[in-house]
Amino acid sequence: MLGLMQDWPLLCHRIIDHAATYHGNRPVITRSVEGPIVETNYAQIRARALKVAQRLERDGIRMGDRVATLAWNTWRHLEAWYGILGIGAIYHTVNPRLFTEQIVWIVNHAEDRMMMTDITFVPLLEKIADRLPTIERYVVLTDAAHMPETTLKNAVAYEDWIAEVDGDFVWRSFDENTAAGMCYTSGTTGNPKGVLYSHRSNVLHALMASLPDSKCMSSRDVCMPVVPIFHANGWSLAFSTPMVGAALVLPGAKMDGASLYELLDKYKVTFTAAVPTVWLMLLQDLEKTGGKLPYLKRVVIGGSACPRAMTQTFQEKYGVEVVHAWGMTEMSPLGSLCTMKPEYEALKGDARLDVQMKQGHPPFGVEMKITDDAGKELPWDGKTFGRLKVRGPAVARAYYKGAGAEVFERDGWFDTGDVATIDQYGYMQITDRAKDVIKSGGEWISSIDLENLAVGHPKIAEAAVIGIRHPKWDERPLLVVVPKKGQKATKEEILGFMQGKIAKWWMPDDVAFVDDIPHTATGKIQKTALRERFKGYVLPTVAAAE
Amino acid sequence: MLGLMQDWPLLCHRIIDHAATYHGNRPVITRSVEGPIVETNYAQIRARALKVAQRLERDGIRMGDRVATLAWNTWRHLEAWYGILGIGAIYHTVNPRLFTEQIVWIVNHAEDRMMMTDITFVPLLEKIADRLPTIERYVVLTDAAHMPETTLKNAVAYEDWIAEVDGDFVWRSFDENTAAGMCYTSGTTGNPKGVLYSHRSNVLHALMASLPDSKCMSSRDVCMPVVPIFHANGWSLAFSTPMVGAALVLPGAKMDGASLYELLDKYKVTFTAAVPTVWLMLLQDLEKTGGKLPYLKRVVIGGSACPRAMTQTFQEKYGVEVVHAWGMTEMSPLGSLCTMKPEYEALKGDARLDVQMKQGHPPFGVEMKITDDAGKELPWDGKTFGRLKVRGPAVARAYYKGAGAEVFERDGWFDTGDVATIDQYGYMQITDRAKDVIKSGGEWISSIDLENLAVGHPKIAEAAVIGIRHPKWDERPLLVVVPKKGQKATKEEILGFMQGKIAKWWMPDDVAFVDDIPHTATGKIQKTALRERFKGYVLPTVAAAE
Repeated sequence: MLGLMQDWPLLCHRIIDHAATYHGNRPVITRSVEGPIVETNYAQIRARALKVAQRLERDGIRMGDRVATLAWNTWRHLEAWYGILGIGAIYHTVNPRLFTEQIVWIVNHAEDRMMMTDITFVPLLEKIADRLPTIERYVVLTDAAHMPETTLKNAVAYEDWIAEVDGDFVWRSFDENTAAGMCYTSGTTGNPKGVLYSHRSNVLHALMASLPDSKCMSSRDVCMPVVPIFHANGWSLAFSTPMVGAALVLPGAKMDGASLYELLDKYKVTFTAAVPTVWLMLLQDLEKTGGKLPYLKRVVIGGSACPRAMTQTFQEKYGVEVVHAWGMTEMSPLGSLCTMKPEYEALKGDARLDVQMKQGHPPFGVEMKITDDAGKELPWDGKTFGRLKVRGPAVARAYYKGAGAEVFERDGWFDTGDVATIDQYGYMQITDRAKDVIKSGGEWISSIDLENLAVGHPKIAEAAVIGIRHPKWDERPLLVVVPKKGQKATKEEILGFMQGKIAKWWMPDDVAFVDDIPHTATGKIQKTALRERFKGYVLPTVAAAE
Repeated sequence: MLGLMQDWPLLCHRIIDHAATYHGNRPVITRSVEGPIVETNYAQIRARALKVAQRLERDGIRMGDRVATLAWNTWRHLEAWYGILGIGAIYHTVNPRLFTEQIVWIVNHAEDRMMMTDITFVPLLEKIADRLPTIERYVVLTDAAHMPETTLKNAVAYEDWIAEVDGDFVWRSFDENTAAGMCYTSGTTGNPKGVLYSHRSNVLHALMASLPDSKCMSSRDVCMPVVPIFHANGWSLAFSTPMVGAALVLPGAKMDGASLYELLDKYKVTFTAAVPTVWLMLLQDLEKTGGKLPYLKRVVIGGSACPRAMTQTFQEKYGVEVVHAWGMTEMSPLGSLCTMKPEYEALKGDARLDVQMKQGHPPFGVEMKITDDAGKELPWDGKTFGRLKVRGPAVARAYYKGAGAEVFERDGWFDTGDVATIDQYGYMQITDRAKDVIKSGGEWISSIDLENLAVGHPKIAEAAVIGIRHPKWDERPLLVVVPKKGQKATKEEILGFMQGKIAKWWMPDDVAFVDDIPHTATGKIQKTALRERFKGYVLPTVAAAE
């Protein structure tokens, strides 16, 4: 027997409808790419999104068509999103920080029909446009006055383009499982893989992400999403903020400390979110200027692990609560947030910081487990680590065009590629990437733990740990270090420093001193290149064993 | 094109799974119907709900079968709910406060196959059991020691019943639109009508109800649902509380002021919800005992309009924030909550209380409009009132077996039967029931507004306003009053008192003095009976017009 409740599909554009109706005059403030600060509100955003929808249809864009955006967080980008969503087309956020070759590959793989771009990226696009044959038109997110001369095909200024229609338009209605958005993940190996969100997954995810133990944003908050909306579905902020009716402050292209501080202070931002690198810049700026953060209540930090000192500084020096979070593009992206359950709520000082180093617990709608390589579930004791697997209504079940099928298990779990512990209260902590973990005699050693320990040595500038083949143990850890300028260290000195701080069998079998460690474009250690460099390396313990 | 996200149906039992996994040791405390206070937790609730599910299947209960519960808020009732839900059967909460005839009618209409009941209601059920032919077995929510002697068919004590299985059971999985629960609404006229919730609607509703501008409960809260879960789907508290991992305090059968206060104080309850009558008893008890409410942060008041004095007392005397709310059984039940948007947040004293008299604004997932009788939308100015219509994924689209089809419009809106205003910020205020509003010359007069004004006269004990046929104006208001004991008032005196406080054309055409006004079982003015009594009444203005 079915229930007798209304058929009300979970469509993303219902979010902007709700915001326009119930929070219509809530400010949406942008530092525009052109320079000046521009203020609008949800009612106007919706009205103009309707024009975008109407104008897209006039250009022949239909349900299922991909519309690329190469743009910063601005009100026009937000309007474009909802306009695209409202006709059942698919927003495809392209990350401008990718290598040019990757951008070309992604746009072609997605077969985007239109490209919406900020003026900033017009020169970049002009260089590659002849290799983007599927793009029929470039819409530049600006007005006539700021429109650059360009060779881009059918290029038009956004303001001129939407001025051609009257906005007398009704959103299309369709099944909630219709594709809504697309975001590619780029690993260190292989081609990028496309994640295809549905309207349903985006709406459910925004609800989950707004719960009191998640972001806990209300209509009284002022939210500044510093994380770009092209990064991992924009951490859902383009959906969850209008859903709860919070005001928006959009930083556009300027994410340096001083620019962010100006917005935080002037617009009394209460909630913000970004990766640690951004906050490092802000904290350095505050240190220099003596600025304070009297309005900011909460900052969500994710993308990579939040350093302990950063959490401490935000909380103790500036009175801002840090919410450490973890997610993936494949998860829409939210996986877990480190808000305090009653078991930890009373903790203070170091004990609280210890908990806050964890990536936290998932809201309703995200399930997690850790397993060994054979798929056997591992205990939640905060120590045992295993492959982290997840499932839920906002987790991918496949990549676009069937790429990377191996990470999707038949029983519905997605293998995150991360290795993690989960404690007795369900707090998860990432300990390594699965491909970097060292498998020694059937047991796992965390490369990240060893690296973090090694860089604590006063003579070491940077450290990386990789597994080297070993006839008896399969793999054993090799510690690769870059000494600090002018310092000389010995293997014995470094291993002696590590002794007693880790299990005996975790001790690296050897230490290699190098001048540099290879990095990816985003600053992560490139372990594939490092492994290549040390291919055929023979550990002294191997020689001894033979 | 469809999105590529996981198929993860929104099933109610996933809520107790989440609670057991991530908040397993969170206390669930009950004042048992047998007397003592019993403590359990979400992990145990889930483990025992699995036994209920397994045991129900052994008794032949299958997907779509209705299982009635006639029970107070206790941990066993909660276990029973999730057990029923977990096999795709339908919980049917029966309100023990209904007239016996109504209970008989409802159980037969629903064709319930099993009845789970508290020991309290065994005598009542014994009296009507021979008229409940569809019930195959009575499960009494108690243990062997407290099991009464009874003639009820196949009666068994719940604890004995679930002890017959081992709990080694896996929830059934099915479409999220499967019927989950059933609750009958009983109007003042006609037979009760059954609302049939789906798993999807319950889960979505729990998410909507947990947002920061809704209940805003987190895992750090201790929630006491005083509103019984047989009342309007229990205001979703049986779903939203475990969903967010808050602790539960269940008052069982005792809802007097002293009993509630004991629980509020002893278990440091931070969040509670009930109808005004309950809070009146609590406040009277506090007045007497001098008790304080240091732990309680927020109280949700709904079911009927919350008196201004009650809000004021809670907030100013006890420091407890009141959230005025409105909903209907047909809405799962949440419609709106009066939390403060930034436009009102700074208000203090009387101005804030003015806003709090409104029933508030809806969360994402509830749409509202007000229309005139022709269906034309009316402005949101806080003054114009019209029929309140709603829609959303947790709003009914039909009643069970097709009853009452006239309230469901073809375009998907449900006519609430209430008349309301909506202000510029989307705050809704109920002004009347549609059938009680007086339609004078195409314009509407609120009977409730006139009543509230009239009872302000020092000589009046109670007042009711009904519409009387008028040849020129269709209807004109007749004010019916019960003078206070020993008081004598005149028509001129009372109308003189009202003069200037309302629009001229709202002034009652006549005043009738009576000894009593008829009431329903739940204490509401029975306007149908009153209209019957004044059938054929001729207004003096009619005589003058002829």
